[in-house]
Amino acid sequence: MRGFKNTLRPISILPPEAEEQIHRASLTMLRDTGVVFEEPRALDLFRKAGVRVDEAQQRVYLPPEFVEEEIRKAPSQFTVHARDPRNDVMIGGDNLVLAPVSGPPFVADLESGRRDGTVKDQRDLIRLSEVLAVMHHGCPEVAVKDLPVETRHLDILYDQVTMSSKGMIGDAWSTLRARDHIDMMAIVFGGREAILDKPVLVGIINSNSPLRYDSNMAEGLIEYAAAGQVNIITPFIMAGATSPVTLAAAVAQQNSEALAAVVLAQMVRPGAPVMYGSFLTGLEMRTGAPAFGRPEAALGILGSAQMARRYGLPCRGGGVLTNSKIPDHQAGTEKMMMLWPLLLGGVHYVLHAAGWADGGLTASFEQMVLDAEMLEMFGRFFTGVLVDEGTLALDVIARVGAGGHFLGEEHTRQRFKTEFYFPTLADTEAYESWVKKGSKDAAARATERYKKLLATYQKPPIDPAIDEELRDFVARRKREIEATL
Amino acid sequence: MRGFKNTLRPISILPPEAEEQIHRASLTMLRDTGVVFEEPRALDLFRKAGVRVDEAQQRVYLPPEFVEEEIRKAPSQFTVHARDPRNDVMIGGDNLVLAPVSGPPFVADLESGRRDGTVKDQRDLIRLSEVLAVMHHGCPEVAVKDLPVETRHLDILYDQVTMSSKGMIGDAWSTLRARDHIDMMAIVFGGREAILDKPVLVGIINSNSPLRYDSNMAEGLIEYAAAGQVNIITPFIMAGATSPVTLAAAVAQQNSEALAAVVLAQMVRPGAPVMYGSFLTGLEMRTGAPAFGRPEAALGILGSAQMARRYGLPCRGGGVLTNSKIPDHQAGTEKMMMLWPLLLGGVHYVLHAAGWADGGLTASFEQMVLDAEMLEMFGRFFTGVLVDEGTLALDVIARVGAGGHFLGEEHTRQRFKTEFYFPTLADTEAYESWVKKGSKDAAARATERYKKLLATYQKPPIDPAIDEELRDFVARRKREIEATL
Repeated sequence: MRGFKNTLRPISILPPEAEEQIHRASLTMLRDTGVVFEEPRALDLFRKAGVRVDEAQQRVYLPPEFVEEEIRKAPSQFTVHARDPRNDVMIGGDNLVLAPVSGPPFVADLESGRRDGTVKDQRDLIRLSEVLAVMHHGCPEVAVKDLPVETRHLDILYDQVTMSSKGMIGDAWSTLRARDHIDMMAIVFGGREAILDKPVLVGIINSNSPLRYDSNMAEGLIEYAAAGQVNIITPFIMAGATSPVTLAAAVAQQNSEALAAVVLAQMVRPGAPVMYGSFLTGLEMRTGAPAFGRPEAALGILGSAQMARRYGLPCRGGGVLTNSKIPDHQAGTEKMMMLWPLLLGGVHYVLHAAGWADGGLTASFEQMVLDAEMLEMFGRFFTGVLVDEGTLALDVIARVGAGGHFLGEEHTRQRFKTEFYFPTLADTEAYESWVKKGSKDAAARATERYKKLLATYQKPPIDPAIDEELRDFVARRKREIEATL
Repeated sequence: MRGFKNTLRPISILPPEAEEQIHRASLTMLRDTGVVFEEPRALDLFRKAGVRVDEAQQRVYLPPEFVEEEIRKAPSQFTVHARDPRNDVMIGGDNLVLAPVSGPPFVADLESGRRDGTVKDQRDLIRLSEVLAVMHHGCPEVAVKDLPVETRHLDILYDQVTMSSKGMIGDAWSTLRARDHIDMMAIVFGGREAILDKPVLVGIINSNSPLRYDSNMAEGLIEYAAAGQVNIITPFIMAGATSPVTLAAAVAQQNSEALAAVVLAQMVRPGAPVMYGSFLTGLEMRTGAPAFGRPEAALGILGSAQMARRYGLPCRGGGVLTNSKIPDHQAGTEKMMMLWPLLLGGVHYVLHAAGWADGGLTASFEQMVLDAEMLEMFGRFFTGVLVDEGTLALDVIARVGAGGHFLGEEHTRQRFKTEFYFPTLADTEAYESWVKKGSKDAAARATERYKKLLATYQKPPIDPAIDEELRDFVARRKREIEATL
């Protein structure tokens, strides 16, 4: 299986009483303030379960016991399958799964700068992600502007599933897109029945915070849950704008929104796989932007992961995010300010783990490879310090003794390759030799690196019959959708 | 007092048995392989304590019980005083003290590039550090090339102690420099007797790994301990070169070297304040450079801090280090790869916390302010998530409800300034406005920032009598030293 084993013990940033207070505040909010679901099927399900529904406001008021009972039905661990079983991923436990950036309207590289995303860029990003072993699941996605918005979801998933052998992230916006994507994955895996208890597709469900799911997201959630596919439920909490400015309230409101949607998924299909998602940031009051890579976001990740852990729900963390437009010092520090808390919180699935730039508006080729190297470091970090007679090497130290050195020792030659991580992008040259080679910064080296990696891409084989069936499906659905326009 | 309270509970990266194995391996090494001290006074002390000394090799073989007994005499917590008591720092416990870069031969800024350090640069760096509140202790130092090496330690400390009101890092290389610096601090604080139980100076003692202290460092250690001043004992471990390549051996050998010098300090003066220092990195096999900001270094910090904790010794961590020549993405990520483990390990004192570049060869003005902002974020991070009725804000959420927003709420206006950290350098502008302002990267913004900060510097007042006494001392010692050349 693909993925890291996170060997860090999760940090609890909230003392037990604070965690309890947030839990209770969330249940109070769900009971007294309620949550809006702008989708009749959702309201029906709540009504049938005996939940009070305000029809005019499309608002449901959830009793605490009911919430606690329903969320217990969600699995704490499950496998998401890929068409190459070596790319299956386990979600939950001590597993850590990393996925690339998804959703930006723009793409950028240092040579051409920022531009609208196109099919060509999208395909190059898929290729790049496919060759990066540390991208465990999913394919990058940009809002390709050279395809019609009504049908491009078909082309995008077709490209992703034929060009990549990794697990798939699907579109969960609206019944139409959700069904199309589930149908396409059903073609790949042998029919809808075959995937009902075998998740092969992950959808992202965002609330319209505060306390609201719009019709398209509620539809998508229902479709994914009904088909046995994974819903990553991610409230869109920007403290100070879509929630109160205080972190305690932000985590509590996020908790209410996440739990409400987990309940809905369980009512659709008990045991439906879900992730408790967090994308919690503060608002940068001076510019109105979400403030990524800040201490508030770091605390938010840790608090969110702790709440998910309380409920035994697998946790998705927001990502390795930055506001920086370019791969500079700010991008490096902000991303690390997001990444360490994700790992320390025991988050199980990190979307936007590589390639994210400019507050999510841009997918960056250089950032993809820079981020991948940052993530790879943790592959070594998680193996920890191995202590045994061979690694303690008292005999070697006794032999070398004071005044000696270890470079020429057999012990060194035998072990350095497994003991050390060897980065590709990080520069350790002597200053003079670095100048001689052009005084390149990490971003410039990343340009060379992503091009080299792209050149190594090989399309993974796919059964021609499945490929044909997918093409037929895409063509038919395009005709059907275009006929309705 | 200046400093952060580190509210994170220290992580133990070594399971209890592994920690025990490293401890035992260290004691075995000290007993059977021994440590070289190239200084007769040190050997005398060991001999008088009944320790076996190999005179020809200047090597001492330390019995385990003796080591354990001596290190128990070292205090686990102490205050280091500054001439402005508001800049006193507490070392140990949950305190975290940050100090700027010290020692590089070069300085750099983006406009002039890299050059030899000069008195002017040195003074500008002192000014910059003085206005950065997050620099808790010490002054930056470069090996100023426009002063004679034999006497420049006098000019450097004179500048530092008159231009800065923070606590001082002194030179501990050789009896001569150590005594001069202690004498100067004695002038500031009212005599040698007055500082005997009141540490006002911190010296860095590096071993000549493996398992050796050269005469200059051993002399410095003895002078500082005898005068009641602080020794930061920092073995120079580069795994694969100065220790075996395996982290277990690197941590164990570092532990032996550190404990041996702690023992020496306690023999000189029982209760002498010391810190257990670590500067552990791997060797970058491809270039021969120390590999900063790597997973091995991160693990090394955590392992080292854990060993210091075992002995109840305050811990100094290597620093916020990078190999990068310039403040780019590599610098940002490598520094964060060093900083998080320092905080997670509960390290008490971080030297080179700001301004370090190019593997320690360069003190960078831009890096000083970029690093300071990175460190400041943790000031907010350590305050955590405050959970109470006011921060949970259930009433505000109920009032705003689904579809509303919180920007205009009184609750938001009242609390955003304390809830959020407000960076100066991080950009969150809209892309178009960022382009309009010159598409500057973080490093370019840092150039503007450090100049602005330098302009705000004000020289802290000093008693003119003390100033005169310091000047007289410096002048006299220069004459004396020059007479011996």
